[in-house]
Amino acid sequence: MADRHRVGIAVLGGTTALDLAVAVQAFGRRPAVFHRIRPEPESPYEITLCGRAGVPTFGELRPMSELAAADTVVVPGVDDPLAARDPEVLEAIAVAAERGARLLSLCAGAFVLGYAGVLHGHRVTTHWALADDFRAEFPRVELAEHELYVDDGQVLASGGMLAAADLCLHVLRTDHGQAYANDMSRLLVSPPHRTGGQSQYSKVIDRPLTGSLAPVLEWMLAHLDEPLTLRSVAAHAHMSTRTLARRFRAETGQSLLDWVVMRRVERARELLEESDLTVTQIAYAAGFGSTESLRRHFLLSSGTSPGAYRATFRLAAG
Amino acid sequence: MADRHRVGIAVLGGTTALDLAVAVQAFGRRPAVFHRIRPEPESPYEITLCGRAGVPTFGELRPMSELAAADTVVVPGVDDPLAARDPEVLEAIAVAAERGARLLSLCAGAFVLGYAGVLHGHRVTTHWALADDFRAEFPRVELAEHELYVDDGQVLASGGMLAAADLCLHVLRTDHGQAYANDMSRLLVSPPHRTGGQSQYSKVIDRPLTGSLAPVLEWMLAHLDEPLTLRSVAAHAHMSTRTLARRFRAETGQSLLDWVVMRRVERARELLEESDLTVTQIAYAAGFGSTESLRRHFLLSSGTSPGAYRATFRLAAG
Repeated sequence: MADRHRVGIAVLGGTTALDLAVAVQAFGRRPAVFHRIRPEPESPYEITLCGRAGVPTFGELRPMSELAAADTVVVPGVDDPLAARDPEVLEAIAVAAERGARLLSLCAGAFVLGYAGVLHGHRVTTHWALADDFRAEFPRVELAEHELYVDDGQVLASGGMLAAADLCLHVLRTDHGQAYANDMSRLLVSPPHRTGGQSQYSKVIDRPLTGSLAPVLEWMLAHLDEPLTLRSVAAHAHMSTRTLARRFRAETGQSLLDWVVMRRVERARELLEESDLTVTQIAYAAGFGSTESLRRHFLLSSGTSPGAYRATFRLAAG
Repeated sequence: MADRHRVGIAVLGGTTALDLAVAVQAFGRRPAVFHRIRPEPESPYEITLCGRAGVPTFGELRPMSELAAADTVVVPGVDDPLAARDPEVLEAIAVAAERGARLLSLCAGAFVLGYAGVLHGHRVTTHWALADDFRAEFPRVELAEHELYVDDGQVLASGGMLAAADLCLHVLRTDHGQAYANDMSRLLVSPPHRTGGQSQYSKVIDRPLTGSLAPVLEWMLAHLDEPLTLRSVAAHAHMSTRTLARRFRAETGQSLLDWVVMRRVERARELLEESDLTVTQIAYAAGFGSTESLRRHFLLSSGTSPGAYRATFRLAAG
């Protein structure tokens, strides 16, 4: 018993129950039904939930010093990732990192690792919808927002919510082999390996169109199915192409062409989900001009094909 | 507020934290990040966790009478599905059913609905590894063990563990449309629609080969790659085909041919997961005689093709 791998799980104010439950299920006591799938007297991991008394959770909470002493530290997501964190948690994580402990962040847990100062030089991921906040807060940490999870050696991170299952299965595979991870996947009824990454689940987060270009952007959205170039938009807006290019980047953070492609992919996604149009019809309706162009841009930004996307996000009979 | 749809969730001794967390996430308060994906002032559901004080869980527990009064009753899985249940829970479920409430069981929660006596004439599913127990306990309830979830009108049931997410997304789609369910799926980073059903996650649960045929079964397992017919096995075992057929069914519950096919599919699965053999080589090694025969039987029993199965359960570099 004493030499089981110790997994310390940080339970903070606002910890996401679902992330926490995934980690507890992957590493903690096996439910009775698991023994039918794989005879195993006990989990190869010994888990400890660490946090301050009073944080509502399932299971007893132990002091943060036990987090600092764990072989693997797991930090589940928290509801408000930008909120100030208890210095005791950040300290425990830093001590564990110093000792060489493996560090796992789930979903917004990457922010907590960031505030603990242990992500320097590391590559991580987090919930796709938090990517902009993460980059703003930790400009020197490499963010792989398209990945379901990232294994960067000492630091491992998963994307949003149930991507935690993908990361935990990856850790079980690393520690105990593919067959072991497959059996846990059979218990969870969740695939041991998902294709296509996190980006197929993302969508453009609409920010209100403000700034002086707002009317131009509105007009572009209404004419996405037409050819939109710097030149044609500048003509519509009565600006020089140079002025438009400069102001476009200043106000949207993107080039005009990148912005147009992003919006066209988003339009294509909506039509794949909600319409009965064929992929070719959608290519034209979204302004791609050809099916090939749609496929190429869709794959680049979503990690999957238009057809596979539709199969996942649209049911024939709703 | 008062007219939000009320979801009552039964929290019992041994309730699976993961199932509970999925239901809470799908129906309960939306995390801050959800508002970026979909502006929504509050969840359209009002959830209540109902259970006896002292059951460890997250969130306040309310009396079972509130479960009886809910519009939708959710029963998450429990660690020991065959354990005796608190009569108060069973009564509350029966009262809710009588009132016409929608009933959702997650994983082993189907057993609790069964003991509450509300499954008569219904079609449900449960964790694939509990299928035999379920059939033995509730012989008159139709069990669709291959399905990730079943929507049978008033009663809806999901298979093992994370199939709960599939069912909850289905309910969101039914109640609030595909676009709503898709946005929840983007929050969860979990597909709104999975193909292939639950059976691709299952495997043959090995029971010790006991009974007088044990040596024969052992011999068959060692010769799966050879033609195995009632006649050839009977010759090996020095029995008449009629005696063998009768004893085979009595001891295994299956015909000899069904048993052989099941074991061959299992052998093919193992080789797809663990070997570098081609699908054709695996077809022969598992005794199918042809790739076509492997494909047909594999699809029938796993709901997926050998190639797709390998892509999910085997990573090139473990």
